[in-house]
Parts: sequence; C-alpha cells; structure tokens
Amino acid sequence: MQTLQVELGNRSYPIHIGQNLLSQAELILPYLKRKQVAIVTNTTVAPLYLEKLAAPLRATGVSVIEIVLPDGEAYKNTETLNLIYDALLKNRCERSTTLIALGGGVIGDMTGYAAATYLRGVPFIQIPTTLLSQVDSSVGGKTGINHPLGKNMIGAFYQPQLVLADIDTLKTLPTRELSAGVAEVIKYGLIRDVKFFDWLEANMTKLMALDTSVTTEAVYHSCFNKAEVVAADEHETGERATLNLGHTFGHAVENAMGYGVWLHGEAVAAGTMMAADLSKRLGWLSAAEVERIATIFKAANLPIEAPDLGVDKYMDLMGLDKKVIDGKIRLVLQQGIGKSVVTSDYDPQALRQTLTMAL
Amino acid sequence: MQTLQVELGNRSYPIHIGQNLLSQAELILPYLKRKQVAIVTNTTVAPLYLEKLAAPLRATGVSVIEIVLPDGEAYKNTETLNLIYDALLKNRCERSTTLIALGGGVIGDMTGYAAATYLRGVPFIQIPTTLLSQVDSSVGGKTGINHPLGKNMIGAFYQPQLVLADIDTLKTLPTRELSAGVAEVIKYGLIRDVKFFDWLEANMTKLMALDTSVTTEAVYHSCFNKAEVVAADEHETGERATLNLGHTFGHAVENAMGYGVWLHGEAVAAGTMMAADLSKRLGWLSAAEVERIATIFKAANLPIEAPDLGVDKYMDLMGLDKKVIDGKIRLVLQQGIGKSVVTSDYDPQALRQTLTMAL
Repeated sequence: MQTLQVELGNRSYPIHIGQNLLSQAELILPYLKRKQVAIVTNTTVAPLYLEKLAAPLRATGVSVIEIVLPDGEAYKNTETLNLIYDALLKNRCERSTTLIALGGGVIGDMTGYAAATYLRGVPFIQIPTTLLSQVDSSVGGKTGINHPLGKNMIGAFYQPQLVLADIDTLKTLPTRELSAGVAEVIKYGLIRDVKFFDWLEANMTKLMALDTSVTTEAVYHSCFNKAEVVAADEHETGERATLNLGHTFGHAVENAMGYGVWLHGEAVAAGTMMAADLSKRLGWLSAAEVERIATIFKAANLPIEAPDLGVDKYMDLMGLDKKVIDGKIRLVLQQGIGKSVVTSDYDPQALRQTLTMAL
Repeated sequence: MQTLQVELGNRSYPIHIGQNLLSQAELILPYLKRKQVAIVTNTTVAPLYLEKLAAPLRATGVSVIEIVLPDGEAYKNTETLNLIYDALLKNRCERSTTLIALGGGVIGDMTGYAAATYLRGVPFIQIPTTLLSQVDSSVGGKTGINHPLGKNMIGAFYQPQLVLADIDTLKTLPTRELSAGVAEVIKYGLIRDVKFFDWLEANMTKLMALDTSVTTEAVYHSCFNKAEVVAADEHETGERATLNLGHTFGHAVENAMGYGVWLHGEAVAAGTMMAADLSKRLGWLSAAEVERIATIFKAANLPIEAPDLGVDKYMDLMGLDKKVIDGKIRLVLQQGIGKSVVTSDYDPQALRQTLTMAL
C-alpha cells in the first residue's frame, strides 16, 4: 500500500493506494465521528463490492445504511441526488454520520455533493472503483451533478476525509472504461510531467494488462500530480485549470452526443487531440509531438478523432464551459509535452480550423 | 447609515444598515467582478423594489438579469431552486456573475444556496427586505432549501460579499411579518444581551411603529450579536447553537402545521416560551422572568402558546433536528434573561411535561 497526503490545511486527507483495501475496516474506523455510515453505490458495483466493504464494518459494530442507485452518467441529476437525501432523512442520519462513496466518478461526485449539502455538510469517504475516479475525481474536492443545459453545472468544492483506491476493483472494469481512465493518466504526463509521460509510453502494455506494480505506480503518480496542482490552487483560479486539458472540447462532445454515449475519458482523449492540433497550428507543438500523443492514446485504445459537429455547434457548446471569463473561451493548450498553458490569447481562426476537424 | 463588519477572515463582509440604500448602486459596484448581476426576487417584492434596485445599476452599465420566483416558504424547494439554475444557464452566467438576493429569508436562503452551488460557487449580495431576514438570515452564511421530510435539510455554509439592510423596505411589510421579525430581535436579548432586552422592553412600541432610529438600532444590535456569535463559531459546533433558541420546538410546530401556516418568527416565539417553561421546571428561570418574556412577546403581537400536537408527535418531529448528537435531543435553554445554554443534560420527564402544553 502506498499513501499520499493531499495538503489542504485543516482539510488535508490521505489517499491509500494498493490491493485489498476495501475490506480493511481498520483503515476507515479512525475517521468515523460515530459508528454510523451510509454507503452510496450503484446497481453494477453493489453485487461486486458492497458486502466486501459493509460486512467488516458491521463486524466492528458500525451501523451501515446501504443506498443503491441506478448506474450511469444519465442518472447524475437532481432526481437521483434526492434518492440519497431521502434515504439519509428516512434513516435520520445526523451531522456525525459519514457518507461513503463506493463506485466511479458519478457515484463519487453525487455522494460528495450530497455530503456537502446534507444538513449543510457531513463527513465523507471516497472509495473509487474505476481507474478514472481513482486518478481524477478522488482528488480535488470537486463534487456535483449535471443539468440538462450542461455537465457539472451544479456542485460544490468539498473535501473527503479519506480516499481508498483499491486497485483490485479495476479487475472487473470493462476494458473501454479502463481505457477512459488511462486518458486522464496520460493527461498528467502531458500537462506537467514529461518523465511520467515517457514512463507511460514504456509501460502502457503492462498498464492495460493491470500489472499490479505498474497500476499502483500509475495511480500514485497521477494522484501526486493532481494533488500538487490542487494544493496550490484549491478553487481553480490558476494552474488548476490545466487539469482541464481536452475537457472544454471534450465536454462539448459529451454534451452534443448525449451524456453517456461517449465515455468522459474518450471525449477527453479526442478533445486533447483537438487541443494538440490547435497548439500545432499556433506553432507551439511539433508534428512529431502530436504524433507521440496520438500514438499513446491509440496504445490505450482511445479515440483520437472527435465527431464533426460543425464549428458553430462546437463554439456554442464550448461557450457554456465554466472556464469562460468575460465571454472569451479560455483553452488549455500545449507548449511541448509536459507543459500546458491556459490562455485565451490565440488566433480565433486557428480555433475554427481545428473545429472543422481538418486534423 | 450604520456599518457592521462581519469578521470571517478572507470571507469577511460588511452589513450596511439605514434608509434608502436600495437605489445606491455605488454601494454595490465595488463588489462586482464583472458588470453582470442576476437579481433573484419574488412576485410580491418585484413590483415594490426590483426596478428601484435594477434601474440605477443599469444606468452605470451593469447588465441585469431578473429572476422572479413565486412567493412563500412552500416554494423553498428543489423545483424553485431549479428555476434559478435554469435562468442562470440560459443567460450563460459565469463564475464572475454576482447573484443578488432581493427579498426575505426564503429568497436569501435559496439565492445563497444557488450561489454556493452554481458552477461550484459564484459571488452573492444580500438585500434583505423583511425584518426577520435583516436580523437573522443575512448574517451567518446559512443557505439552503427545505425537504418534504424537514426544513433546511439541504444547504451549505456560504458567505455573501455584502449585505444591504434597507429599513425603508420594512414599511411595506405586513404587520404579522414585522412581529415575526421582532421575535428574532428579542431572541438576541434573551440569549446573550440583557441590556438589549431591557432596551427593547422600553422601546417596543417605537419599534412596532418602525421609528427610524429605533429600527436602525434594533437591526444593528441584532446583527452585531449574531455576527459575534458566528465569527466565533462559523460552523455551528458551539455557542452558535444558542441562536437556535426556540427553534427546535419551533421547527416542530412549523413542520406539523405545514410550512407557511405559522410564520417562522411566530413558531420561534411559541418555541421560546416552551424553552422558558422547561427552564423554569429545571429551576433555571423564575416565574417572574418567564412572565417578562411572555409580556414582551405579547407587546410584539406574537403567540406565546404552541399548538398541542401531543408529546409523541413533538418528540418525533424534534428528533429530526440538525442539533441532534448521538440520538439525544440537545436544547437551547435559559439560565436567566441574557444567558442561554445548549444542553442535553436535563430531566426528560420535565421535557415531556413542557410538551403536554401545561404552561
């Protein structure tokens, strides 16, 4: 087991990464204010892991409430959120009850948001069971739900008490979702860690095969990079925005195709290729570097071409993004591999050329 | 105009109290990150004050979005909250857009919660137009909505940038709502400021007639007391709980009768009398002191008797309260006028006697 401390003053918390963490109640017990937890999970994860987590907790005298939600991004909405509130209220959960998110990013985001807002805030613990959520949503305190007019439009910054990234849970992950998670892993190399990118190029086959040592390292270095960025910029005013590499384009893709049709990581991969294309047009990235990025995405079975929605549709959908300042579209672009910049200072014609899909 | 600074580190903010503040755009302009605001108000307040606020802002070049909600506690729910989100998204409001709450506590709580959660947090300004909201919800950062199973069950702690308490707006307030606001004013005297209680006994007639000087003083001293408590205990773990004098009983009354049937302040007055009755049974308050409390409430045209719901119903409804720790009902009780304590260390039989309404 490796442990990483996310440094956020009095809201700091540890991330444990390793095998067989789920059933170790002793990792969780020190964080409970009282012996009551509500585990929020979904219909896919529950049969696989709910009892593995719940039974050892119950054996130590913890009262466990189980909240099983429908599975999928399509349910990351007000209605499903209300199912959590309803269960908490019906079970008379108090401010000292701890919420545990057991599942992927959707479960983590919704449970975190429920924890941030139930009785104006109760403690919560994240147990991410997908690669994407282990390397992305488990660090940074972003919680929230979608709105028909945009993704993650409603939410809060709220930190967990503890994150358990049990890499054993990745064995039951569909390969498409594994690839989607790898997209975010690659992102950390691209935006700020060229050594990690080099290492990933060399170890991608092992990572895709879930080799224990390589997977643990990949999750650790991803969380390490994200934690460094978040610690320096908790509320996303500066460097943190680089974490959104590929996301402004990617959100437009997800939104246009309907949530859940493209996986988030798939949209991010295609979006990252668009950012790379624009960076190349601006003279910031060489053709060879763009090719390296495309090659590593392909090695992870990720799409490198976004759907052709037309320039106007892209511009429209991108205008809704949270990173917009004063009506200008700020983008995360590449200045070589391992260096990203957040800028609205680019030739708008170059953006339009990228959006025509003339890759 | 009097000004009070609420000290909360980098989330400190001023409260201006006085006449004719609403139309002074120059009080608001320094707090805007960009020249765009969304004013949230209701169908009762809009015809009276919306243009008085919006026109001077527009005259200085501020883009003003108007969001007019249905009026009443019954609308303090997810559906109405979504109307705010919808309008913000349709108008493409960004993180630099400021929300302005123009109305009573319901508008303030919902707008504050929308501000806390839209794009994970945007700035907001409170312009409370009722006495209750000027002396209570405008200080402390409590925001939220109701749930069918309980009041204010969903919410966030979130601070405004600025509060403008324009006492001119109280002139259009129904007298029943004025009285309800006075209940909270009296509360500050009861829990921690015996001099203020004495002053209120002497000036209640002038306050009920909205004498300018007395009203400004009453709002100022109420906010001052609340700000002191909140600054010392932002997240309600200690002294802040005394602000809930009468509220555990009162929430049960509001909940049982249906939200909006009893005004919040009316329920608090009756609930405070129940707390006083229990305090007397415990030997902490004299019969003469209970009589003083009843007399000042009567002078403000407030109810001093709660409805007889039966002991079990009260216990059941009170068990849902956010102040419950480990299943025990903690209550705010009086140890003389000007001194409150939060305790679960009382004879449960005495509580049951109080709840039988044998006042």
